[in-house]
Amino acid sequence: MEDLKNVYISPLPDSPYVKPFRFNYTQNGKEKTWDLLEVHDSVAIVVFNVSRKVMIFVKQFRPAIYYNCIHPDDRESKVIDTEKYPASLGIALEMCAGIIDKNKPVIQIAQEEVLEECGYNVPLDQLHKITSYRSGVGVQGSLQTFYYCEVTDDMKTEQGGGVDDEIIDVVEKTIPEIEEMVNSPGPIPSPPSCLFALMWFLHYKADKFRK
Amino acid sequence: MEDLKNVYISPLPDSPYVKPFRFNYTQNGKEKTWDLLEVHDSVAIVVFNVSRKVMIFVKQFRPAIYYNCIHPDDRESKVIDTEKYPASLGIALEMCAGIIDKNKPVIQIAQEEVLEECGYNVPLDQLHKITSYRSGVGVQGSLQTFYYCEVTDDMKTEQGGGVDDEIIDVVEKTIPEIEEMVNSPGPIPSPPSCLFALMWFLHYKADKFRK
Repeated sequence: MEDLKNVYISPLPDSPYVKPFRFNYTQNGKEKTWDLLEVHDSVAIVVFNVSRKVMIFVKQFRPAIYYNCIHPDDRESKVIDTEKYPASLGIALEMCAGIIDKNKPVIQIAQEEVLEECGYNVPLDQLHKITSYRSGVGVQGSLQTFYYCEVTDDMKTEQGGGVDDEIIDVVEKTIPEIEEMVNSPGPIPSPPSCLFALMWFLHYKADKFRK
Repeated sequence: MEDLKNVYISPLPDSPYVKPFRFNYTQNGKEKTWDLLEVHDSVAIVVFNVSRKVMIFVKQFRPAIYYNCIHPDDRESKVIDTEKYPASLGIALEMCAGIIDKNKPVIQIAQEEVLEECGYNVPLDQLHKITSYRSGVGVQGSLQTFYYCEVTDDMKTEQGGGVDDEIIDVVEKTIPEIEEMVNSPGPIPSPPSCLFALMWFLHYKADKFRK
């Protein structure tokens, strides 16, 4: 995962992933604009293994995080110096998640993501929808639906790690390790959706697994 | 806040707010690209009023959320029908927050945002840094620093509501109302950073204010 080379920045071509545009509006009589991105809705799944009482995370290299660790003066380099900026800077710890780009029920996409990324085959009736919220308020306002499931070692039928080009590691953390993570001074290499999921779990679920 | 007219989408001009580009890299010998945005780092502040035991939220119209509530077929309209899609669809409930675009200590920007948006004049030594995390892992990986402060009615020296063109309402919620919010089936019109803040408060702070 940490073998990183030939890193450079180039102009955005016509991209299927990032479609920026300008939103124009008049609010309370005042003309305004806001620059936005079109982004897919998504699903995130909190997966807790009750056999060994560990939370299941996915770990992967995230260009957006890596880029933000590069000093602005170095971002314009022809090639980014990966000795100075090793890949480890961009490695994120997240909940299992996926975008909703197929014409399928959201719960089914959640089930597929848990299998593809984490290797657990979870029956649909064991995926509990918790809530949904907006992924962001600035440039992207897509909806993210949040599921919770408890899995056992028996359900681990595949290796996980993603499909196609994905390079994903499955990582497990105990409840004390989760508490240590959310209480660290940071920077925590995780997005707020992951931290919400962890705090939600600690507050509403963890007690029954402690003893 | 909900007087919305002349809504339409146009191509992104050269924008100071949204700067998309392509990140090119070779990971484990495989050439890849990822499309990204350059985004400012930011600060978010959890403000709890201990005089009346209420959490302080800011409420504002967010184009990114509104846009995502418009059916894809209607997004291309010359003008968006605001009878069919009222402004209320785009109104978000968030923690007080701001971007770090000034050459000042982060804690000072936190202090200014609490005053400008919420109207409370908080001494610097009462702003406690909790942690920092990545705002996103997809297109934006900027750092968000998270502060907590307890305020009293005496500290409310200004009206709040933001500066310049900002149209921001200050909203208060009791602890039971926060619990109801995070336990709703959604869509919750808030970003995950707000939900993380609420769960963090419920888990680590709320008990001392209940009785």
